[in-house]
Amino acid sequence: MSRIVNVALGQLGPIQSADSRAAVVARLCAMMREAHSLGAHVIVYPELALTTFFPRWYIEDEAVIDSYFEPSMPSRETLPLFELSRELGVGFYLGYAELAEEGGKRMRYNSAVLVDRRGAIVGKYRKIHVPGHFEHEPWRKFQHLEKRYFTPGQSFDVHQAFGGTIGMALCNDRRWAESYRVMALQGAEMVFIGYNTPVHNAPAPQHDDLSLFHNQLAVQAGAYQNGCWVASVAKGGLEEGVESIAGSLLVAPSGEVVARCVTKDDEVVLGRCDLDFCAVYKRTTFNFDLHRHPECYGLITARKGETLAADGSLLER
Amino acid sequence: MSRIVNVALGQLGPIQSADSRAAVVARLCAMMREAHSLGAHVIVYPELALTTFFPRWYIEDEAVIDSYFEPSMPSRETLPLFELSRELGVGFYLGYAELAEEGGKRMRYNSAVLVDRRGAIVGKYRKIHVPGHFEHEPWRKFQHLEKRYFTPGQSFDVHQAFGGTIGMALCNDRRWAESYRVMALQGAEMVFIGYNTPVHNAPAPQHDDLSLFHNQLAVQAGAYQNGCWVASVAKGGLEEGVESIAGSLLVAPSGEVVARCVTKDDEVVLGRCDLDFCAVYKRTTFNFDLHRHPECYGLITARKGETLAADGSLLER
Repeated sequence: MSRIVNVALGQLGPIQSADSRAAVVARLCAMMREAHSLGAHVIVYPELALTTFFPRWYIEDEAVIDSYFEPSMPSRETLPLFELSRELGVGFYLGYAELAEEGGKRMRYNSAVLVDRRGAIVGKYRKIHVPGHFEHEPWRKFQHLEKRYFTPGQSFDVHQAFGGTIGMALCNDRRWAESYRVMALQGAEMVFIGYNTPVHNAPAPQHDDLSLFHNQLAVQAGAYQNGCWVASVAKGGLEEGVESIAGSLLVAPSGEVVARCVTKDDEVVLGRCDLDFCAVYKRTTFNFDLHRHPECYGLITARKGETLAADGSLLER
Repeated sequence: MSRIVNVALGQLGPIQSADSRAAVVARLCAMMREAHSLGAHVIVYPELALTTFFPRWYIEDEAVIDSYFEPSMPSRETLPLFELSRELGVGFYLGYAELAEEGGKRMRYNSAVLVDRRGAIVGKYRKIHVPGHFEHEPWRKFQHLEKRYFTPGQSFDVHQAFGGTIGMALCNDRRWAESYRVMALQGAEMVFIGYNTPVHNAPAPQHDDLSLFHNQLAVQAGAYQNGCWVASVAKGGLEEGVESIAGSLLVAPSGEVVARCVTKDDEVVLGRCDLDFCAVYKRTTFNFDLHRHPECYGLITARKGETLAADGSLLER
């Protein structure tokens, strides 16, 4: 038996401040048409795929911050993408900044939607591992204020789509083994991830040369150790003076890279994924029911870090 | 500041059934002398480093099984290694089969000891992720009966030694992200791992070509995602007709391989590890206190697998 999903990596080159949403959606639509011509069932776009990566700036004006967010999805500007999805029968994963209203309170999330081949939203994810910092740090060459602009999401869910069980994550989530594991414990066979990763890491410039290596290592390990496919897609290139890594890739449950983007621009690459191939790992080396030992993992949920308990209180040492 | 630990990988070639413990200990001692000549502070030996890898055989005679186990450590045969350790000032990690008595009950564990530079045991670890199978499966070319012969251990602890915080794991533990994380949450700066990994994986022969890749991937990810050094050391080569991978390696907190064995025989390779280099990762990208979200990891301890709860009961789906 085999359950084939043809997955397109829909990597984006830079989006400058002056680029309108309409112009960006036109690029996304062009890539969807290209993906369709390659036989894609679904195309994976990056994180925050509709605007420039605004968390690099300290912005005080709430209205300016809001201008980067979508109060609804689809919105007027993104509707063409949903319509094209339905027309072509190509689903998609799209990262965007989400403005939500919860009990009369305005909330901002770094989110992604999963859209099926009929153009219908079948899943939403709000980024949990929000990286960067909260305070204004003008000493940096550029900032990374995601912790200021985004409230973390609450759960890693999975969704039935494309004939299988699909999980979603965003950017920094991919470096944390817990992300993949929580989804795999719910049966995830394929995980979609969008990211924006500047080459330069201000607090740890020693990492700059290793950015692409770390990107690939984390995704390969997540795929292998959970017996699932992972499609991880960048917005890369020089955006508003900041260079981001590209290196979008598709990794098999074996941990092998089976497709990869090679430019730092808009680029579509297709991979053919057999969801039944997951079983070769999920039923042997990584048969969780047989081999995991949750009774020994207590600290993973009991502690936040070396000095803090899960609830944020100080640990006695 | 820097806290340097010179770590020797003490890879072993095969140990045949006919090889006496005394002969094996002589090999271990020769390697310790070589490590000392290279300036080593500690040498890491493999898992089950005193005998052939007996779990490949279905053995019914309890006395024969016991013959592969050590009822004490040091034992008469291993004492020369402890004496040489004290003489040279070289600590070690040694994997062995442990016969214990607990409340009048005989228990068998797949264990390792950590010995400081004065030849004193400062830590013990009993393997948690015991792989393989429990029942006689004569259809296999060779068996992997670890689940039959070993009771799983109860906890991943860390130990103060060699000027830092040291964790221990064994073989299959290295493929499970939880192993490294539980130790890193206790401050592990360096993890020692011994392993025996047959090239041929009977239930999943599709993995055979990837054994060395998977070995390296799991260790690199464990080191990078926890900002710690990992020394992972094999018993490799053709042992009693079964070929095992070698490929012992030392990985930095950056995920980079900094030392590697290249033979399938007894081989000593040295790496110079600065424990303070861990901070470059532990205080930035992998600052757990800042960036982890244990409130979203509940399933990791609540579930064993996709169908079983942590206590082994069936999940309702």
